[in-house]
Amino acid sequence: MDAKIEEIYGQVLQKVVPSSSKKEKILNLAEDVKKRVSSELDVVMSDVRVIVGGSVAKDTWLDDEADVDVFMLFPTSLNKEKLGEIGLRVAKNALRGFSQKERYAEHPYLEAEMDGIRVNVVPCYLIEQGKWLSAVDRSPFHTVYVRERLQAVDLRDEIRLLKKFMKGIGVYGAEVRVGGFSGYLCELLVLNYQSFHNTLEAASEWTLGMVIDIENLYHGRFDEARRYFDAVLTVVDPIDANRNVAAAVSYERLGEFIMACKIFLKKPSISFFYPEVEIPLSPSLFQKKLSTASFDLLFLLFDCNVTVPDVLWGQLYKSLRAIRKILVQNGFNVLEVSAWSDEKRRNILVYALESRLISASNLHLGPPIDSKEAVDFLAKHTGAESTVIGPWVEGNRWIVGLKRKYIDAASLLRDRLSNGGKDTGVGKILFEPLKNSLKILVNEEIIPFYSSDLDYALFMSSFIRGKPKWLI
Amino acid sequence: MDAKIEEIYGQVLQKVVPSSSKKEKILNLAEDVKKRVSSELDVVMSDVRVIVGGSVAKDTWLDDEADVDVFMLFPTSLNKEKLGEIGLRVAKNALRGFSQKERYAEHPYLEAEMDGIRVNVVPCYLIEQGKWLSAVDRSPFHTVYVRERLQAVDLRDEIRLLKKFMKGIGVYGAEVRVGGFSGYLCELLVLNYQSFHNTLEAASEWTLGMVIDIENLYHGRFDEARRYFDAVLTVVDPIDANRNVAAAVSYERLGEFIMACKIFLKKPSISFFYPEVEIPLSPSLFQKKLSTASFDLLFLLFDCNVTVPDVLWGQLYKSLRAIRKILVQNGFNVLEVSAWSDEKRRNILVYALESRLISASNLHLGPPIDSKEAVDFLAKHTGAESTVIGPWVEGNRWIVGLKRKYIDAASLLRDRLSNGGKDTGVGKILFEPLKNSLKILVNEEIIPFYSSDLDYALFMSSFIRGKPKWLI
Repeated sequence: MDAKIEEIYGQVLQKVVPSSSKKEKILNLAEDVKKRVSSELDVVMSDVRVIVGGSVAKDTWLDDEADVDVFMLFPTSLNKEKLGEIGLRVAKNALRGFSQKERYAEHPYLEAEMDGIRVNVVPCYLIEQGKWLSAVDRSPFHTVYVRERLQAVDLRDEIRLLKKFMKGIGVYGAEVRVGGFSGYLCELLVLNYQSFHNTLEAASEWTLGMVIDIENLYHGRFDEARRYFDAVLTVVDPIDANRNVAAAVSYERLGEFIMACKIFLKKPSISFFYPEVEIPLSPSLFQKKLSTASFDLLFLLFDCNVTVPDVLWGQLYKSLRAIRKILVQNGFNVLEVSAWSDEKRRNILVYALESRLISASNLHLGPPIDSKEAVDFLAKHTGAESTVIGPWVEGNRWIVGLKRKYIDAASLLRDRLSNGGKDTGVGKILFEPLKNSLKILVNEEIIPFYSSDLDYALFMSSFIRGKPKWLI
Repeated sequence: MDAKIEEIYGQVLQKVVPSSSKKEKILNLAEDVKKRVSSELDVVMSDVRVIVGGSVAKDTWLDDEADVDVFMLFPTSLNKEKLGEIGLRVAKNALRGFSQKERYAEHPYLEAEMDGIRVNVVPCYLIEQGKWLSAVDRSPFHTVYVRERLQAVDLRDEIRLLKKFMKGIGVYGAEVRVGGFSGYLCELLVLNYQSFHNTLEAASEWTLGMVIDIENLYHGRFDEARRYFDAVLTVVDPIDANRNVAAAVSYERLGEFIMACKIFLKKPSISFFYPEVEIPLSPSLFQKKLSTASFDLLFLLFDCNVTVPDVLWGQLYKSLRAIRKILVQNGFNVLEVSAWSDEKRRNILVYALESRLISASNLHLGPPIDSKEAVDFLAKHTGAESTVIGPWVEGNRWIVGLKRKYIDAASLLRDRLSNGGKDTGVGKILFEPLKNSLKILVNEEIIPFYSSDLDYALFMSSFIRGKPKWLI
């Protein structure tokens, strides 16, 4: 490792490792939450354990970014509905007086703010390892596993470096919106490669379909694991051979991570950890960029209120792909696509197209000249309303020039989505919102909305650049 | 065979079989030519045989379409140059007083007109079978072979039906311009299938790469013949196992023939043999068609004087393909293409494009995210002048949006062909003509020329329809 890199690591560690007093403060807060929840639980049920989990319990949190996670371990005699209901009520009462928000993952949990620190109180089941009833049940086992491993070799600060690096390049977070690397995944990677730097070096050489099996649960049968998980990256969960901790990682975030590792190792810079703060383009500059751009932008705006972010983003991304397919199948060449949401009401799908308008006709390849299908092809297209030229033979096929149904991408989507996009592959939850509130805008027509929403302006400024911010 | 078909065949035969008196007249003419050539030859060389060949000798010619072919069989002691020189001089003297034209195939021959009949006097070598020195040397052997076979079974009128059918649907003729079926090939097909109707039925089921080996020269090893000839259709020459009589047949003419057979058998009509005479669209109607067409036409006009038609058309078709490739590689979607020539001076390549103008940017797929090439791809495109958006990751690849160099097909070709098209695959003989005289016109700009040349008007009227005339 060269001096330059070592210096950078030192600088980052100075910032991300919390001081002893900070650690003490957070641990005290966690104990306080635990006590409040425990005493509130005693009123309702006996024998429910309460534990502190997450990065605070493992001492892998980043300074100024602590999240206190407290788990209530309910008996399995409670059904899922009751678990959520009771868990939420207990948590609310326990943290009365603090700002609170109900959240939903697989079941509800409470998010609160205490002393400027985010606190999550999460109900789950007390179960034997492997007999999971919900995804969150594994969490306490993860905590135990990582703590034990870190007692043997202290890699806490190495983990902090990796988390900060991933945050800096925008690949941190297993939520659907991001499709990146979870905190637990960062911990496992460092445990596997034994240092942050080793992890970077290894990841810079990763190939698609990589399998990492720290506890050797597949006994070296990587192909079996690869086929079983069928993921861009597989990191077998040490406490559950059937779970891929990297299941959320998308091609996009994996590709960005691999490339960021390569570039950082070649040209190390602290900006990978601490990128420049982005400022959105001013509306007039944005408008100027659009008017001189060599592509067209198509915006689909609609109102939709889905309370669970992962569900919302799942629906948005699914719809983004489905609508892209409509465009491509109708001859529109799509450059970049993305989705934005304020996670309250406003949602926007955006498509950068080579061109919003395309030719009035298109080449349609028919069957081989010696095929049975050729007769039907000619019967269908000869003299047809939709035929503009042909059919003729070229190479070994019959070919015809057809009139396109749509030469304007906006008209195409207005038609296809007028019923909410049923039968197009658009997310079900979005049928009604699309049907009732869809507006399709082109290029500069987005300026009024751009000017009204700073977060959106930031998103669009990044979108029209189109490349990861660390890529210079 | 149903009554309707039988009736049609009867009608066609009435027209294409020459009367006895006509046959006698043509044979007399042939004998007359033979005598004139023989006596002229006696002055120059002794022991040169003169024979009547072609369809007149085989009695397979179509009424009103007789071509008298007379061959002079020179000894192999003469070199090729001398063969042409002496052959041409003798022929010219022999047919003094009749209208004459020098023609070139592999070597020169004389075309003359006598009594309204076209007469060809062709020098070739007298050789043993198989020891061919030029392509035309096989011709006398073909005549002998076919005559012998037809003496056993008289299929002359069946051959006449096939020739007329092929002429009617536009697939007759082995010259480069047509890329179709020669008269000898028609004769062999009927000899193989034993009737015109059988030939149609068989051909309607032909598959690409068919091998027909009448004299069983490959002993049933069709795969061997197929690999050796590597043609869309192989008909092994009964007098030469190394020659494919169907070598000239193109995908286009084969596909049209197969389909015409299918449609004729399903919906028989005499119009396959006698299509309606085509009349070009009036210039104003043509102009109207262009202005309402859903595609754009690009015309490359240049002057070029190549005396051997097969050479000219070879160069034109080669250039047509090369220039199409330039268009496609630059993002222009090409519908139909064709070439026209007056075979004297004016030549035109025509391209029907989905659109003459295309988007200013285009999607450029990069390497996989886990490849070594990804680093170079990003180094090349990040922040480059030509990059309009990206690079970003999509699926397993890096992708970038690039600025196109050309958005107008006419500008593209003006640039690329300004030096005559060297290094583009354009025919060598056309380099100078393209460099010196190329004019590129778009859509209605062709109208003045269209109005000035009836043959071209006919060609273009057919081109913008784009389908074979028998396809309704």
